[in-house]
Amino acid sequence: MPDTGPLGPPVPERRPGPSTTTPVLPAKPPEPVVPPVLGGPTGLGTASLSLASAPRPPAAPPPPVPPPPVPVVQRRVLGGPTGLGTASLSLARTPDPVLPAPAPPAEGKAVPGLYHHSVPEPDPVRVEEVSRRIKRWAEDEVQLYPEEWEGQFDGFSVGRYMVGCHPDAPTVDHLMIATRLMVAENAVDDCYCEDHGGSPVGLGGRLLLAHTALDPLHTTPEYAPEWQTSLGSDPPRRAYRSAMDHFVRAATPSQADRFRHDMARLHMGYLAEAAWAETDHVPEVWEYLAMRQFNNFRPCPTITDTVGGYELPADLHAQPETQRVIALAGNATTIVNDLYSYTKELASPGRHLNLPVVIAERERLSERDAYLKAVEVHNDLMHAFEAAAADLAAACPLPAVARFLKGVAAWVDGNHDWHRTNTYRYTLPDFW
Amino acid sequence: MPDTGPLGPPVPERRPGPSTTTPVLPAKPPEPVVPPVLGGPTGLGTASLSLASAPRPPAAPPPPVPPPPVPVVQRRVLGGPTGLGTASLSLARTPDPVLPAPAPPAEGKAVPGLYHHSVPEPDPVRVEEVSRRIKRWAEDEVQLYPEEWEGQFDGFSVGRYMVGCHPDAPTVDHLMIATRLMVAENAVDDCYCEDHGGSPVGLGGRLLLAHTALDPLHTTPEYAPEWQTSLGSDPPRRAYRSAMDHFVRAATPSQADRFRHDMARLHMGYLAEAAWAETDHVPEVWEYLAMRQFNNFRPCPTITDTVGGYELPADLHAQPETQRVIALAGNATTIVNDLYSYTKELASPGRHLNLPVVIAERERLSERDAYLKAVEVHNDLMHAFEAAAADLAAACPLPAVARFLKGVAAWVDGNHDWHRTNTYRYTLPDFW
Repeated sequence: MPDTGPLGPPVPERRPGPSTTTPVLPAKPPEPVVPPVLGGPTGLGTASLSLASAPRPPAAPPPPVPPPPVPVVQRRVLGGPTGLGTASLSLARTPDPVLPAPAPPAEGKAVPGLYHHSVPEPDPVRVEEVSRRIKRWAEDEVQLYPEEWEGQFDGFSVGRYMVGCHPDAPTVDHLMIATRLMVAENAVDDCYCEDHGGSPVGLGGRLLLAHTALDPLHTTPEYAPEWQTSLGSDPPRRAYRSAMDHFVRAATPSQADRFRHDMARLHMGYLAEAAWAETDHVPEVWEYLAMRQFNNFRPCPTITDTVGGYELPADLHAQPETQRVIALAGNATTIVNDLYSYTKELASPGRHLNLPVVIAERERLSERDAYLKAVEVHNDLMHAFEAAAADLAAACPLPAVARFLKGVAAWVDGNHDWHRTNTYRYTLPDFW
Repeated sequence: MPDTGPLGPPVPERRPGPSTTTPVLPAKPPEPVVPPVLGGPTGLGTASLSLASAPRPPAAPPPPVPPPPVPVVQRRVLGGPTGLGTASLSLARTPDPVLPAPAPPAEGKAVPGLYHHSVPEPDPVRVEEVSRRIKRWAEDEVQLYPEEWEGQFDGFSVGRYMVGCHPDAPTVDHLMIATRLMVAENAVDDCYCEDHGGSPVGLGGRLLLAHTALDPLHTTPEYAPEWQTSLGSDPPRRAYRSAMDHFVRAATPSQADRFRHDMARLHMGYLAEAAWAETDHVPEVWEYLAMRQFNNFRPCPTITDTVGGYELPADLHAQPETQRVIALAGNATTIVNDLYSYTKELASPGRHLNLPVVIAERERLSERDAYLKAVEVHNDLMHAFEAAAADLAAACPLPAVARFLKGVAAWVDGNHDWHRTNTYRYTLPDFW
């Protein structure tokens, strides 16, 4: 997983963020995401893409999520057309009688020159409720961390993160599906791979046994009970099992299969990174980028349809063009993580591979030049993502495809915003 | 991958097989595989399962395989109803004017007490043609091995293996899809993990880069060419890339996605085994069985529909019941490998984990008792597979499901038969 953790010790206490509280615009003004698709009916086949009135695809079963115990709030994000392309995000739900005033933008400076899209401030009511529930889940349901890690769990701001990445989630229950998985993925990364007792040594065995919490073992009656017991034996496995149980109840079997595949990719990525750490190998830049396509946020944006309460049909998800869009989006979001966590990783013990570090070493550039080149690599990936998404939307003008592409784009933007505003974890290097 | 290799050195020359040329029947007479499904219309919903007249599912596109350059032979296997349930395997193709006489059964003794099903001798005309073509592919197209490994490549008998496992392949071209992948999977296992220069050290990096031959990298124009070049840089990657290119041309996007997922599972399994080897860890029996559900033949039976020229739709493949059938079938076939390769692995340098070895160590049994217990584990998995397949066939009486289940069962039986008859590689221990 990209470094969104850790959940426990090393990082001591809240650090001040960079000097400005005003988001810095990128060097070029942001272009609309997949403009012909999301901006309105401006091109061939795009007229049918508006989501406000489009029927749900017939294959999508209503997820069996119980009614939320808190009132479903109409997010301000969706309360009206506040930006280019956002009008079509309206899901035609009844607005609350009284809309709260917009929250002030959170502090945190964007990486200068980074191509990104600003997002509206995540709905604070949803953020608060998701934050309350995820902490109860982590502490009471899966006993995720000892008491002294609480501050870091709070500093993770996973409620804000997931509310920002899933603006079209119908309810807080839907948001919880994504939030539990995000926390579980970080717990496995921290406890098995990285900061909290993790190690590259023997990692393959630990990750495979954890993976069986997602992709169950089918074995004989004599040996099955020991496996079942193992799933409760440590925080990472308890978290994977519980988060997956909740996910599977809301997802179709094909969505669950897709998620398992993306998690297998993630675990392969962890193991490639671990192998290089163990052998003290600095990969070529293209090799690093290949590893990072696997050790990647991909499992998070690809559940956007389950979290949104609909389904991108399996045969559409498997199309090479869809796979390309997903891969490029995942790669761009992951390089965002490399850029924002650069300073934090430099300060950690040992050499932590990230794109600027690999470029500096392999292409003999200064730290600053390597960092700036990594920004360009990110920007190229973002542009490629948006071009591929626009091509797919034009070639396959179906409502589920349009909504899925919009969901992935929203995840990309929300992910950037979380990194920008998470001044508890991230500070930028002094390169400008 | 289960040990079906190696393709090169260590093993010196053809070893004599066990003393008998008559297949030994298992202790209990074999039961029909999924009897209500394959034996004819005897139960609820099974009437529609006959494949002879069943229409292909509309979703299955005709694979764009060119007409075979050699005459398509009518396999003797399919020339008439020669055994319980085989009548419905007829694919209604025109029989050859002259059918060859049945070939004598190949030598090789089955593991006593092993629950299995005998299979008709694979069609020698197909075996010869697949063997000829795969050798040409390995030598001329992907430069798989140096000249001195040729004897071992021949001893692999992969033509016989794949013809035996895919009795319903419409043409030799379809059989080649499976055969190239099987050879490529063994090449990666041998060269990266095991006998031919493989090592657990750094394996995660090597496997991930090889995996990009199956699941392509999407990156920037600056770095993409180096990745493309890398795919031709060693025999394992050349083999993966070429075998996958051929497969993708014949498969639907969902079938390709399924295969990539199964290969990610396989690579995770390799990495768990490598982690244990590196740390000299002997897992619990259930942990070993979990690892072996990943380091598993699964990618081979699950392409049975592509090789058969039809498609099990993605949503049916993803059903938990289908996933359970596939997992149990894969687990049974993989334990077959453990049992037949036991003697060979004991003779290899270092400790090679297999089920009898792990049971002996963890349950403090003698080598003989542990081996016999492993046979029982296999038999339990086979019975569970057949029960789960029968349940699924009854619950989901669709032609594509029935044919897929029959294809998986045929793969299980063909795999056993290949192990039994591959006396070039395998000899049984002296426990009876």
